[in-house]
Amino acid sequence: MDLFLDGNGSLYRQLVRALKTSMATGRLPKGTRLPASRDLAVSLGLSRATVVAAYEQLRTEGLITGRVGAGSFVSAPSTATLPVRPTLPRTTVDPQSAFSRRARQVHDHGNIPGKRRPGAVLDFQYGFATVNPSLARQWAREITRAAHDLPLNYPPSQGMPALRQAIATHIGRTRGVVCEADDVLVVGGVQQAMALVSRVLLDPGDAVVMEEPAYFGARRVLQMHGANLRCVPVDQDGLCVNRLPAETAKLVCVTPSHQFPTGAVMSLPRRQALIDYAERHQSWICEDDYDGEFRQEEGALLSLQSLDRSGRVVYVGSFSKTLFPAARLGYVVMPRALRDDFIAAKWATDAGCPPMEQLALASFIAQGGYDRHLRQITRRLSERRKLLQDTLAAELGDQVEVLRARTGMHLMVWLRGLDLSQGEALVTQGLRAGLGLHTVAPCYVDPPDRAGFLLGFGTLSPRELVDATRRFAMLVRSSPAGTGRRRGGLVLAHSA
Amino acid sequence: MDLFLDGNGSLYRQLVRALKTSMATGRLPKGTRLPASRDLAVSLGLSRATVVAAYEQLRTEGLITGRVGAGSFVSAPSTATLPVRPTLPRTTVDPQSAFSRRARQVHDHGNIPGKRRPGAVLDFQYGFATVNPSLARQWAREITRAAHDLPLNYPPSQGMPALRQAIATHIGRTRGVVCEADDVLVVGGVQQAMALVSRVLLDPGDAVVMEEPAYFGARRVLQMHGANLRCVPVDQDGLCVNRLPAETAKLVCVTPSHQFPTGAVMSLPRRQALIDYAERHQSWICEDDYDGEFRQEEGALLSLQSLDRSGRVVYVGSFSKTLFPAARLGYVVMPRALRDDFIAAKWATDAGCPPMEQLALASFIAQGGYDRHLRQITRRLSERRKLLQDTLAAELGDQVEVLRARTGMHLMVWLRGLDLSQGEALVTQGLRAGLGLHTVAPCYVDPPDRAGFLLGFGTLSPRELVDATRRFAMLVRSSPAGTGRRRGGLVLAHSA
Repeated sequence: MDLFLDGNGSLYRQLVRALKTSMATGRLPKGTRLPASRDLAVSLGLSRATVVAAYEQLRTEGLITGRVGAGSFVSAPSTATLPVRPTLPRTTVDPQSAFSRRARQVHDHGNIPGKRRPGAVLDFQYGFATVNPSLARQWAREITRAAHDLPLNYPPSQGMPALRQAIATHIGRTRGVVCEADDVLVVGGVQQAMALVSRVLLDPGDAVVMEEPAYFGARRVLQMHGANLRCVPVDQDGLCVNRLPAETAKLVCVTPSHQFPTGAVMSLPRRQALIDYAERHQSWICEDDYDGEFRQEEGALLSLQSLDRSGRVVYVGSFSKTLFPAARLGYVVMPRALRDDFIAAKWATDAGCPPMEQLALASFIAQGGYDRHLRQITRRLSERRKLLQDTLAAELGDQVEVLRARTGMHLMVWLRGLDLSQGEALVTQGLRAGLGLHTVAPCYVDPPDRAGFLLGFGTLSPRELVDATRRFAMLVRSSPAGTGRRRGGLVLAHSA
Repeated sequence: MDLFLDGNGSLYRQLVRALKTSMATGRLPKGTRLPASRDLAVSLGLSRATVVAAYEQLRTEGLITGRVGAGSFVSAPSTATLPVRPTLPRTTVDPQSAFSRRARQVHDHGNIPGKRRPGAVLDFQYGFATVNPSLARQWAREITRAAHDLPLNYPPSQGMPALRQAIATHIGRTRGVVCEADDVLVVGGVQQAMALVSRVLLDPGDAVVMEEPAYFGARRVLQMHGANLRCVPVDQDGLCVNRLPAETAKLVCVTPSHQFPTGAVMSLPRRQALIDYAERHQSWICEDDYDGEFRQEEGALLSLQSLDRSGRVVYVGSFSKTLFPAARLGYVVMPRALRDDFIAAKWATDAGCPPMEQLALASFIAQGGYDRHLRQITRRLSERRKLLQDTLAAELGDQVEVLRARTGMHLMVWLRGLDLSQGEALVTQGLRAGLGLHTVAPCYVDPPDRAGFLLGFGTLSPRELVDATRRFAMLVRSSPAGTGRRRGGLVLAHSA
């Protein structure tokens, strides 16, 4: 039994206070048998009389029961009656670092866009696909195997060699990424990849190009690190490279294989132009191969990294989408000139990812389970995407503009004739009807005044998907402008 | 099959190049059956003649076998003969950020002090205790259970509620830490805790007090974040609080329960003085309760955090020592005023630790397995410590000065009459004899000119420990100064 004698007042008082505090804080829960007074006296170096007196006091206050000689037991005192050190009041302080100042500006603890809305029966949440039970079973099997043969010491900061090799082989084959195991850094997801990119490449104030719209998560991480954001628009061919800033951007962040959230695939000429820009300006490119793994067409374009001749592309991938987020694994293919810097930054961040998930994943990839899973989920997502497209067309016709997407787990849509605030109103109405909706606005720094939505279909069964889409269509049709537009036959098409 | 047509030259040449590159990079490994020329032509939008001609060319070069109509197979070409895109040469660049500039100064990739030395048969490595097989089995069982019932979506950034509750209850009971589950942040080890402390509390140039000597890992993380280090010496009562800088230190980092590496326990008056200093200067205290869990005496002092009335202590703990490093789990008890800042910084760092290890650990603690393990390992380490002390005394007598340690998995010793460089020479001699030795010098910013060692005993069996200690003693006795001292009967005691 640890008792903290605080040195204030007589030993008797100190002991009473220490025992009460221990009871109140749960270190001596109800029913605990206290040590015999003789034993406690010896272990604390007090006289036995002091201990007996303290026990008597507690007995008088009804905090312990029993008698000297027969054992004393804690009798579940109301903590309210105890002289507990009060829990510290929640005080506020100014941000203590520039990082925290920026974090307070951009991080919204309560609100993660795309997350399932509490209360929604059907939810178009995006960024997550329901895992089939067979994958969960296979994963548990791999984990069990890894857990029974786990190296218990510190893992290498760069990642387990088996996983780095498996990743290098896989992305070489499927995405044309030119790398060896030694170029791969295992990280805890895209968020961490962006944090490391920021640490290695950016000082506060450095100019960073981001797509507009873009993934808010990556944008927030960059902002917290002090990036001076330059937003460059995206069209159906990806980033508008001719609109890159004339002055040098230190870093250009792109999602060429499937732009988030629009779904655009960056064209080959644009890719080449971006590589040229980086070489000319000595900029770095961060290629987030956002769900590039869900390939659904033959002859798809390979990664930007495979075009890079000067080693200026940092290639980032994640298993959060292709497996599930709880795996907390992703990777960075490091330009060789930055390899040591990345590994040092990773070391300073967490000394390395847990080895167990890494070993499980390495085995899953090497045994072919990952490829099989990718084929299955790609087919399933493809069917759902088509079902959503068809249902939207049938229910809303040209009231809805669906952006073309060949991969991924969501569709981006604009509602013709509805503005931003009407879009927000639909979210509220949807929630009242048990339908979770998510506008595209959080993906923009400067959202256009149109009602745009990301309709995630990864977690909905075909039946739920049709049901949710019909409910969505009903809401749209009954919204004021929708009705007005129908009645008046007017189509107000805004361009973003 | 993904083929990347690079747009240079005729389609025929592009296709030949694309196929060769795919073979060379392993995307088309030996034995792969190529698609029928007709199918490939359709999927790439080329004429069949182009594909046939390209296949013919590869056949001529001996890269594929088989005939048109009968199927073509990749025949394992030597990659040396292929026009592979050369792997990028390792170029160097200047550090791209202030963080990387500092990292290049302080991070030594090849050298992690305390780590087992390659080639050593017996090694006094420290910071790691061999796990008994029963713990490894229990852990695998907990992991298996967690893996079969894993929430697959994003975990909360702050950590799984079950683990935060288990930690709060445990450290409240054993260390007197005043906190609720909501005050606990789950992190990926002490390294990450220090990185988050740095992000939340420090701007580059801020003054940070560190103990001298101290844990080099924490010091390096702080240095990478730009901390302006002020080293304050440590004696047998812990940090010499009266030598704290007169100007304000933004942060004071201490290991009061068992100073690393000296083993000193900070006295109660010093603790109170440090708390007073922090209140007076509005400084923050980072209390790294380095192996505070291995309590070996009744009535041990509880944490500094339990004395803190003004919420200025950040309490940091880890399971790397008490369980094993591969768990990659630790925690921060956040001052309430900084709670949101810490959670935002954790979110920006990796969005949250993997849930599986968290759930396994929560169950292990709640079921009492962790407490049982702590008792076992504490007893075992205690026996080994005594054995090492006794063997050192028997073998080296007063040639060795052993710093008093009541807990932990290493002893710190000074060799009387040997200087720093003689200590380094012993390391080299030891390695030649298969013995891994580790000097205390890396723990100092400014090491004293004495031969000091950290003798880790966590991974050695009693027999190995005695054997290793005797070899160590033999080396010491045969070292020039050692011999000289013996002969001359001179004791050259330096004071650090």
